[in-house]
Amino acid sequence: MFRPLSLLIINISKHNVASQIKYSTAILPRLSSEKYNIKRKSFGTINESDINHFRSILSENRVITDESDVLPYNIDWIKNCRGQSKVVLKPKTTDEVSEVLSYCNSKKLAVCPQGGNTGLVGGSVPVFDEIVLNFSLMNKVISLDDISGALVCEAGCVLENLDNYVRQHNLIMPLDLGAKGSCHIGGNVSTNAGGLRLLRYGNLHGSILGLEAVKADGTVIDCLRTLKKDNTGYHLKHLFIGSEGTLGVVTKVAVHCPAVSKAVSLGYFGVNTFEDVLQLYRNAKISLGEILSAFEMADNRAICSTVKNLKLTNPLEDYPFYVLIETSGCDEEHDSEKLNRFLSKEMESGHIIDGTVTSEPAKMRTIWNIRENIAEAGLHDGYVFKYDVSIPLNNYYDIVLLLRKKLEGKYTNIYGYGHIGDGNIHINVTVPEYSKEVCDMLEPYIFEQVAKLKGSISAEHGVGFRKPQFIHYSKDESALRLMKDLKHLMDPNGILNPYKVLPDV
Amino acid sequence: MFRPLSLLIINISKHNVASQIKYSTAILPRLSSEKYNIKRKSFGTINESDINHFRSILSENRVITDESDVLPYNIDWIKNCRGQSKVVLKPKTTDEVSEVLSYCNSKKLAVCPQGGNTGLVGGSVPVFDEIVLNFSLMNKVISLDDISGALVCEAGCVLENLDNYVRQHNLIMPLDLGAKGSCHIGGNVSTNAGGLRLLRYGNLHGSILGLEAVKADGTVIDCLRTLKKDNTGYHLKHLFIGSEGTLGVVTKVAVHCPAVSKAVSLGYFGVNTFEDVLQLYRNAKISLGEILSAFEMADNRAICSTVKNLKLTNPLEDYPFYVLIETSGCDEEHDSEKLNRFLSKEMESGHIIDGTVTSEPAKMRTIWNIRENIAEAGLHDGYVFKYDVSIPLNNYYDIVLLLRKKLEGKYTNIYGYGHIGDGNIHINVTVPEYSKEVCDMLEPYIFEQVAKLKGSISAEHGVGFRKPQFIHYSKDESALRLMKDLKHLMDPNGILNPYKVLPDV
Repeated sequence: MFRPLSLLIINISKHNVASQIKYSTAILPRLSSEKYNIKRKSFGTINESDINHFRSILSENRVITDESDVLPYNIDWIKNCRGQSKVVLKPKTTDEVSEVLSYCNSKKLAVCPQGGNTGLVGGSVPVFDEIVLNFSLMNKVISLDDISGALVCEAGCVLENLDNYVRQHNLIMPLDLGAKGSCHIGGNVSTNAGGLRLLRYGNLHGSILGLEAVKADGTVIDCLRTLKKDNTGYHLKHLFIGSEGTLGVVTKVAVHCPAVSKAVSLGYFGVNTFEDVLQLYRNAKISLGEILSAFEMADNRAICSTVKNLKLTNPLEDYPFYVLIETSGCDEEHDSEKLNRFLSKEMESGHIIDGTVTSEPAKMRTIWNIRENIAEAGLHDGYVFKYDVSIPLNNYYDIVLLLRKKLEGKYTNIYGYGHIGDGNIHINVTVPEYSKEVCDMLEPYIFEQVAKLKGSISAEHGVGFRKPQFIHYSKDESALRLMKDLKHLMDPNGILNPYKVLPDV
Repeated sequence: MFRPLSLLIINISKHNVASQIKYSTAILPRLSSEKYNIKRKSFGTINESDINHFRSILSENRVITDESDVLPYNIDWIKNCRGQSKVVLKPKTTDEVSEVLSYCNSKKLAVCPQGGNTGLVGGSVPVFDEIVLNFSLMNKVISLDDISGALVCEAGCVLENLDNYVRQHNLIMPLDLGAKGSCHIGGNVSTNAGGLRLLRYGNLHGSILGLEAVKADGTVIDCLRTLKKDNTGYHLKHLFIGSEGTLGVVTKVAVHCPAVSKAVSLGYFGVNTFEDVLQLYRNAKISLGEILSAFEMADNRAICSTVKNLKLTNPLEDYPFYVLIETSGCDEEHDSEKLNRFLSKEMESGHIIDGTVTSEPAKMRTIWNIRENIAEAGLHDGYVFKYDVSIPLNNYYDIVLLLRKKLEGKYTNIYGYGHIGDGNIHINVTVPEYSKEVCDMLEPYIFEQVAKLKGSISAEHGVGFRKPQFIHYSKDESALRLMKDLKHLMDPNGILNPYKVLPDV
């Protein structure tokens, strides 16, 4: 009963052509419930009268029930999870969201809020028959104050569209990530997305000025102020930042947008050892100071397989490690002087072996493309086990070497890349197809290693569906108890994004 | 039964000599309960067996019960509030805090957590006989990672001591405020303190990497990681940032400390109109960009009365407005070029009439001293009604003019000063002594005006004891309902800092 694959693909993966080609030749992912052996909780089951009620709230065409139309909303971007939802709802207003949730709560119907569906831990797709609450039609900009930099918009706005919009007013979004062409700002907030600008502009707990969210029972919580400072009572907005739609559904956000930098430069360097990468980071913080806006690293295999799989061009020869350094500032001459001084010093000392520096937007785009497509490119090898951990810098890269040794002969590729400045490394393990044997060798081994180093088992991707059983590697029992208490307080029937974030008691 | 005043004074006000002199000639503040007509809630009453129990936990000398010794802990810094506590406890460890709270919770004994007691809304002193839990002996630095900038310390560390400590490692604290010589980092976190560096380094929700807190029932919540990114479950630490000790007591914090800037300059300018102040801010954001680290303004009366009351020297003549602009960066030559270019442009266009720029630490200190002592200096006029509001920039200064008109003939002085970059203005209304008539003319009038402009009735000082009845001017009913639910969840007996933050149901 599937619609022709070409249509299906457009919905699943808007990222780029590469994944579409891949997907068209692949079989459908297994059902999450079977693959991970999950039992359905005792929620209500949706019936015709429920559907009619949703139609009365949203109108006919925003209640999607055709099986083939619903399918793309059931599958996550990395083809790891597949749910069994029968209905997708597309509200246009907060009131509609409130009415839908109030109804679902009264009937104990479970709901899976969904933004751009670019999450990497299965948080954005249903597991069983949860109703998909999709925000793609709540995509309006509400206001922009170009003096204070406060942007107010609906949750379904695509990050890249917002960035393009605020750039017309000499501002930028405080976050940037590979999935920016598809991800929604509401999803970014709900998952506390990190990304490429965190080093410079901090995390969303700092950048989100206010938000509006709807609780499970339909209550609208209005914290949508645009003030930088507001110490009146508990800071409720933070309950919704990073709780992955399990405590409430974000409907509108107010974001502080920093001023765009007149001068931006990007350096891309070949480096011999990880120790040199670290030394380079130390020196960049001192020499480039306030103009340092990104410091990213990727190992040889990450770059080479990306370039090969996506048919991109690597401007540099083969090196064990690659480093991207971005600077942004308000004076091109000053910035280039700082950057050149830094480069000549670092090339002289041998921390940088070769490199290229550019301020031309097209060339910068080419380099960023390689870095941003690493996640995507792994899908070409078959199945990807993706890990996203924080580790103190001195041990940052050890885990990649450990895994290569432990999994010898069992993998296609293992590589590491990430945001050095944030202590955040992404590790991809690619295999021809999903294998429980490899999975069991990886998990919980990798989380145990991270816990030993006092790292985080999920730096920015969140917990979602894939990691609740591992959360205790990063949070102790008292903290988990309080999380469960909060969940029970705010969503006593547990209808919001079930099977996600918190392990069952 | 009071101890000689000289001793009392040292405990109350460590800020500077000025307030001590003033206090020694003043009578004790009225009891808060009488002044504001508050009824005691049905908490337990402390008895000899309770005291003995506390002695068994803390040892004899850290349980203070002598009436004159306890008095300073009952009075807030601006001499507005006076509580009636009979006992002050000084824990040294988290375990002690946990044991104390667990006991108090079981006996329904109310507790007032107290840091440096520099709060301005009566949040840090008891109202009735709440037990004062003072953190001055939990003042140890635990660790500092000078590569990542993560400082871990106990809650009772004084902010200025921490800043001095991390400066030895080329770092600075991400916040700075007038009370830095006395305020505790635990109090800063609990009140989400803003201050002078927020423009550059953002607020504490962004800068606090982790914390440890103790719930009312004694449960220790350990979120003391030092990671920049950790998306594993709900972001619990934010429950304790800015909830003013009513949801839990902060015992340890991990703070991200930015790198110290090699080059710092301070400009102090005389400006003719508030419109010119705003234009100057707009232009500074563009011309100084990433090196702009503070943009403060004060009106003529704020500066002149401070200079006069504290016998300081104003380096400039009389001007309607004064602006402080601080830059910090990693290259002195570049920064001074940017600053000079900006200055010559702004003097030419007439936005700046006169000014002085310096990079000498002693001279910068002299200028900052004037700005930082405005709050203090008002006490010399007698009683100060202090307001701290956020208002969109276009209407930022209107409120001062409105108040001067409304209170004509009823006040000694009314002035405004604050952090333009954060939309945050402080308004001081000084009168010879507290007057209910003036209070009634000010409140809720000032809050109504702020609410009309969608501002915040407390930008950084918090709600404390003085403003729960006005919180609805900034937060709606649903938000307040959720706050109360959170309070009930986390502190069902309501023992933590009662009579503060939330209005009674």
